[in-house]
Amino acid sequence: MNTGKALLVDLYELTMAAAYFEHHIDCHATFELFVRHLPPQRSYLVAAGLDSALSYLENLHFTEDDVHFLRDQSAFRTVSPEFFDYLRQFQFHGDVRAVAEGTLVFADEPLLQVTAPVMEAQIAETYLLSVIHYETLVASKAARVVRAAAGRPVLEFGTRRAHGPEAGVRAARAACVGGCAATSNVLAGALYHLPLAGTAAHSWTQVFSDERRSFETLLETFPDTAILLVDTYDPLVGAEIAATLGTPVPGVRLDSGDMLEKSRYVREILDRHGRRATQIVASGDLNEYKIEELIAHGAPIDSFGVGTDLVTSRDVPALSVVYKLVETEKSGVVEPKTKFSEEKVYWPGRKQVFRFSQHGKYHHDLLARAEEEYPAASPLLQTVMKAGRRLAPAPPVKEIRELTLANLACLPEAYHSLREAPAYPVEKSVGLERLLEEVRMQRLGAVKASPQGEGH
Amino acid sequence: MNTGKALLVDLYELTMAAAYFEHHIDCHATFELFVRHLPPQRSYLVAAGLDSALSYLENLHFTEDDVHFLRDQSAFRTVSPEFFDYLRQFQFHGDVRAVAEGTLVFADEPLLQVTAPVMEAQIAETYLLSVIHYETLVASKAARVVRAAAGRPVLEFGTRRAHGPEAGVRAARAACVGGCAATSNVLAGALYHLPLAGTAAHSWTQVFSDERRSFETLLETFPDTAILLVDTYDPLVGAEIAATLGTPVPGVRLDSGDMLEKSRYVREILDRHGRRATQIVASGDLNEYKIEELIAHGAPIDSFGVGTDLVTSRDVPALSVVYKLVETEKSGVVEPKTKFSEEKVYWPGRKQVFRFSQHGKYHHDLLARAEEEYPAASPLLQTVMKAGRRLAPAPPVKEIRELTLANLACLPEAYHSLREAPAYPVEKSVGLERLLEEVRMQRLGAVKASPQGEGH
Repeated sequence: MNTGKALLVDLYELTMAAAYFEHHIDCHATFELFVRHLPPQRSYLVAAGLDSALSYLENLHFTEDDVHFLRDQSAFRTVSPEFFDYLRQFQFHGDVRAVAEGTLVFADEPLLQVTAPVMEAQIAETYLLSVIHYETLVASKAARVVRAAAGRPVLEFGTRRAHGPEAGVRAARAACVGGCAATSNVLAGALYHLPLAGTAAHSWTQVFSDERRSFETLLETFPDTAILLVDTYDPLVGAEIAATLGTPVPGVRLDSGDMLEKSRYVREILDRHGRRATQIVASGDLNEYKIEELIAHGAPIDSFGVGTDLVTSRDVPALSVVYKLVETEKSGVVEPKTKFSEEKVYWPGRKQVFRFSQHGKYHHDLLARAEEEYPAASPLLQTVMKAGRRLAPAPPVKEIRELTLANLACLPEAYHSLREAPAYPVEKSVGLERLLEEVRMQRLGAVKASPQGEGH
Repeated sequence: MNTGKALLVDLYELTMAAAYFEHHIDCHATFELFVRHLPPQRSYLVAAGLDSALSYLENLHFTEDDVHFLRDQSAFRTVSPEFFDYLRQFQFHGDVRAVAEGTLVFADEPLLQVTAPVMEAQIAETYLLSVIHYETLVASKAARVVRAAAGRPVLEFGTRRAHGPEAGVRAARAACVGGCAATSNVLAGALYHLPLAGTAAHSWTQVFSDERRSFETLLETFPDTAILLVDTYDPLVGAEIAATLGTPVPGVRLDSGDMLEKSRYVREILDRHGRRATQIVASGDLNEYKIEELIAHGAPIDSFGVGTDLVTSRDVPALSVVYKLVETEKSGVVEPKTKFSEEKVYWPGRKQVFRFSQHGKYHHDLLARAEEEYPAASPLLQTVMKAGRRLAPAPPVKEIRELTLANLACLPEAYHSLREAPAYPVEKSVGLERLLEEVRMQRLGAVKASPQGEGH
């Protein structure tokens, strides 16, 4: 079956599109993608996934096989043939405003704002949420791990435990967006020009009857880059062997046990044999909390390989990310939108995020209506796509990473704490508050006018 | 860049392969893929991902672009041109034994056993781990959610919060393997012939100025299948409107708030208007614990839409899955392998899992050497690939789902508990214990014979 990404949606996007089509409902809609609440373990997010989102929108189309598949679904039995012709010609014609990848964002702040014919904006929902959510999740986790490593390189090693190998590729890029120095994922390296890093597996050493011979063999092929995994049997014996080889040893890796104690012993062994240039890489279920602890105790570790916790964002494997209709427009009539069910109210209307700084540090953000102006602040949402075409190619990941690090340098110290950081202030403008009130009043009016309004 | 899945590996798989190649190390190796420990929240796993694993192995090859990319990496500068010729012709020629998808597995039990030339078995590591890990993770979570729903259908709705849209596709299939009735992921439905399910979004209702009109419109296009989302504003008002429409209403969905209370009110409203056939679908951050509670209190919910918790396996977003060398063979000389660093010892040699039943229920498993025989038990690992070719196509997901449910019906009640279930007994054979001891003795001998053995 020749199928593309257009079917990579929740069924309801397509049934709603069909019903819009059949009823000639063709207003323009603006949806905003944002995170409702930050969990207690996250005091900021690092925006990522925009490149994936824009590539998707630019290339979105239904193949003939896609259309056939849908037409054959019993649910679509009642849909007219013209809808399938519409899908055959489908393209995304909308405009997108977004915060740049690498920008710090907080709860309620749109990462993406899509304005398009309602069917187009609706069909894009599932995929946009999925890529922005996951890549932001990993970039944000990476920033914490990189912070904990206090200047020592963090290497992303997680593909094997990512949620499928494709998630591994996304995670590799997002980890570098968040500040990681390199990844072990070769495909991600090829696609996104990321620095690659790797060591050796236990199986390498196990294939040999002799540990020394396994080290020598790897160094013969990779004299400048081989990192020897020394803990297949006994890490101190392994380190001793590595330290007494006849050639320079770029590095050794420790993958288990008490990393603080073991790294000290191994450093001592290496130094005793004059191997001061031999680096120590640590890996094995590491995360920002363990790394912070190791650094605090002065563990002589030169770089950290971080896998599972990074690529699954293990402590927070999902964010409360949503894609909400905030406005419709038809023939110049603009209607701001929200919903009022329980805790799920959100800010209506097209918005802008204004970031205020003081003395080079972020002071607070202001969530405001798109047309408001605050010359003293930086507006974070910028137009990145017009009529379905991106305005510029994605910057290289190296540049995005620098932006992330520059952003983080502007975030006041308190918000960097890995535990119980305070909430960064995101204020709402008077204009926005007023708009919510207007929409609420209008809704109350509509309910009162309807005979069901007092139905229970 | 025309690239395939062959680069979707950790760098070290390829550097090790290069070093094997350069040194003419061409033994056969057997690797086993297993989970070290089950977390306290999981008393069993549902094996999944085998179809992905075998498809990968059957199609594994390096494109010319892949080879060029690697050759241009500075790390490969010291590697001879012949290695890149080897990659150009690379295919997987190995044998695979595996437990069928839908089989229950426990800690230490191989889900997959790969025997191949060492380079081939090594290169496959990252991808095999990633697909078996993630699909097993989701199938296992799904089985718990399905169990909690006590016969009511569970619908997989998670793509938007999965770890990327491709993870959403994998999750949809795995969720159905684990017992879900349908998915909202259209592509997964198309690729794996899964039943599709969907409702409508809040945005649908918000586009209309009138809630009633939004419901009527959806029903006009989808009279037999439309599920009306009634909680955009006030769920009881929404239910009242749905109950008083002029046409039959297949179902309504509730997506927020106290589901127990709300589903009761909504059921009452529907019934009062003679809408007994109208089903109630619940969704909104559901998981097995919340569903168990709702069912225990008699919530009149007909089916559950489960997203984030299911597709991220939120309480356990990763398993301690590994791919370990257990044996090498060269010219008829077989060497069992393990490692002895700290807590990371594992059982050496090629193994078989024997499952013993009593009165139609699973009693215990026995992890044994591959050549042992226990006629009273079912051996779980079966040959599924010979010389790089699968022996049979994957069964339809529908059949795998039935196997899962049949397996679960054989698992004694105690192990189904969602909290603090006892550990299912996985015993080790005397033959296996003896082999570990032999390998240990041999290793001690090797260390004593080496001058580094007493180096610290």
